Amino acid sequence: MITEPRGFAAAGTTAGIKPSGKPDMALVVNEGPKFAAAAVFTRNRVVAAPVKLSRSAIEDGQLRAVIFNSGNANACTGAVGEQNCEMTIKKVADTLGFNFLDVAACSTGLIGDQLPMDKVLAGVEKLIPALGAKGEEAAVAIMTTDTVHKQAIVCADGWSVAGMGKGVGMMAPSLATMLVCLTTDADVPSEMLDEALRKATATTFDCIDIDGSTSTNDTVILMASGASGKSPTQAELDAAVFAVCDDLAAQMQADAEGVTKRVTITVTGTTTDEMAHNAARTVARDNLFKCAMFGSDPNWGRTLAAVGMADADMDAENIAVYFNNQAVCLNSSGTPEARSVDLTGADIDVHIDLGTGGTGVAKVRTTDLSLQYVDFNSAYST
Amino acid sequence: MITEPRGFAAAGTTAGIKPSGKPDMALVVNEGPKFAAAAVFTRNRVVAAPVKLSRSAIEDGQLRAVIFNSGNANACTGAVGEQNCEMTIKKVADTLGFNFLDVAACSTGLIGDQLPMDKVLAGVEKLIPALGAKGEEAAVAIMTTDTVHKQAIVCADGWSVAGMGKGVGMMAPSLATMLVCLTTDADVPSEMLDEALRKATATTFDCIDIDGSTSTNDTVILMASGASGKSPTQAELDAAVFAVCDDLAAQMQADAEGVTKRVTITVTGTTTDEMAHNAARTVARDNLFKCAMFGSDPNWGRTLAAVGMADADMDAENIAVYFNNQAVCLNSSGTPEARSVDLTGADIDVHIDLGTGGTGVAKVRTTDLSLQYVDFNSAYST
Repeated sequence: MITEPRGFAAAGTTAGIKPSGKPDMALVVNEGPKFAAAAVFTRNRVVAAPVKLSRSAIEDGQLRAVIFNSGNANACTGAVGEQNCEMTIKKVADTLGFNFLDVAACSTGLIGDQLPMDKVLAGVEKLIPALGAKGEEAAVAIMTTDTVHKQAIVCADGWSVAGMGKGVGMMAPSLATMLVCLTTDADVPSEMLDEALRKATATTFDCIDIDGSTSTNDTVILMASGASGKSPTQAELDAAVFAVCDDLAAQMQADAEGVTKRVTITVTGTTTDEMAHNAARTVARDNLFKCAMFGSDPNWGRTLAAVGMADADMDAENIAVYFNNQAVCLNSSGTPEARSVDLTGADIDVHIDLGTGGTGVAKVRTTDLSLQYVDFNSAYST
Repeated sequence: MITEPRGFAAAGTTAGIKPSGKPDMALVVNEGPKFAAAAVFTRNRVVAAPVKLSRSAIEDGQLRAVIFNSGNANACTGAVGEQNCEMTIKKVADTLGFNFLDVAACSTGLIGDQLPMDKVLAGVEKLIPALGAKGEEAAVAIMTTDTVHKQAIVCADGWSVAGMGKGVGMMAPSLATMLVCLTTDADVPSEMLDEALRKATATTFDCIDIDGSTSTNDTVILMASGASGKSPTQAELDAAVFAVCDDLAAQMQADAEGVTKRVTITVTGTTTDEMAHNAARTVARDNLFKCAMFGSDPNWGRTLAAVGMADADMDAENIAVYFNNQAVCLNSSGTPEARSVDLTGADIDVHIDLGTGGTGVAKVRTTDLSLQYVDFNSAYST
């Protein structure tokens, strides 16, 4: 779908990085006439080589292409890793006649191994002549343990925003990485893209918390070709970018490794949205709560104990908890029907009101902690 | 062992709170001649009724008895729960001729259910005539899912410090609770006890992190009878209290629910001890790291990615990781022998140097995240 907005071409290929022989490289090119772009990156201080180079590339608010690979994160690979990433970017830039700083790179996969550069450079050579309306090929080629590829599109009045993403499935021997590439044919400057992207990621990708781990490679890039000739307002752009990000975030939650329950935690009744977010995330990261969700157990006691550790204003004697809209705890004590709530379905809605009467509100998407998750993520990496 | 320091009596009994019919109430009495005491409690803002009442009891630095029950946490039980705790304390105080505020209470078990007061009050009536040199009975009666009872003692020059503890095994349908009772026959004021206890817990119980969850009931109480007539210095008291706490903490780590690996994480090379503690705890709470430990997988990539999210000064290009004293990552890149480290033993030592040259250091004890942990903690609570 990322090639549906006008002015974009893409391709995916099998370069041989993955032992499985599945597609593992993709290229997305903005054919213009404009090249405005924005990006957000992982908050981890240990960052992969492609994140370092992409941060430099986005500094001027312009991008013409993004080169992706899966199967190898090029993280914790030292100076050699950075040189390999530079070489890959240079190959793309030179072949397409772009400046080095107009090309970003994204990698996902095993941490700590060097990229097989012969395969990567040969992959670039295959990708460039294959460029076309191949958004789906690209979306497939960035998958790691994702079981489905993830795409979304929002069509506005004569312009559109599309996206592809991978994650938050866990990399077998390493970390989840979330990579997202968004395209739009709107004619907007990079400052507007940046504002729309930061607003959207704050309430979508930043509100997925599967296991509290943050990848060394997380990257979300938004490119605008201007090919529609339409210039939406900031509010219009914000709405469309949010809708695509929200759709992709829901797809990631649903496909998370080992997930048997999709759990959405909403917190209200505290002073600020930030406090509500902190409280929702604290519960989303609590292993005892997550195990209860796996067991379809309406365990409001664990929920209360978890939220009691949050950095949020609360009235500890006046907390309410609702599972699937049924009150299980009021005034910080259980309701008579608390243990009869049916949580056997795949979607569980948890609402926690912290009882201060404040207007802060936030929603975090998480999953259960399942036997499958542990089994998968304890597999030996060699 | 808590009755080995002179001036203490204890007893344990089966009151019938636990459906299993195992011992579930204990009483520890300080027979004097002095009654100085100190205590630390959970940092959770959702606190159980016994924590509220014990906080009031310890305010004057004096305690004569602590009444314990297992099988029911008396947490999130509202005004009725507080009245039940008051009634229990009053029964102990009245029968023994103590003031109400000279008795503390500790509960551990299921959150959200009211105590069966007929059984609890009958339990108190059985405990009081049974008081004697029965420290082990008391240690057994406070167990929940602990597989062994936990005791420790340090003998100094004519005085001693002893302790009993339970935890960090998970309560089947609810939270882990850590309860510890320490006794000493040293003749020291409550201010010295408080200082020794706070120093000791900061580097022992506060440095166990099994699953990031903090109970509503955690309590550590230290009582001094003065019966030895010996008055150690603050440093001597600190050393003895630390040694008993450290011993109990190691016993708790070893007995944690679902544990197959005991993992000790040491962080160095950052600016302050507090930063090192934050970094060690961040790794200890990372589910991907913990799954790798379960799989005996020397996954330094996950370790690096986890520590990169810590709130600690680090040189992100100069981090070193050692598993069982073998370097697996230097300068933030893997060593050639990284994947050959043998982690199949039950004890895994992880040392992370954050590379700044700073002198901050901290150690956190954790466990792996095992299939057994999830299986146990996803069991339905009803």
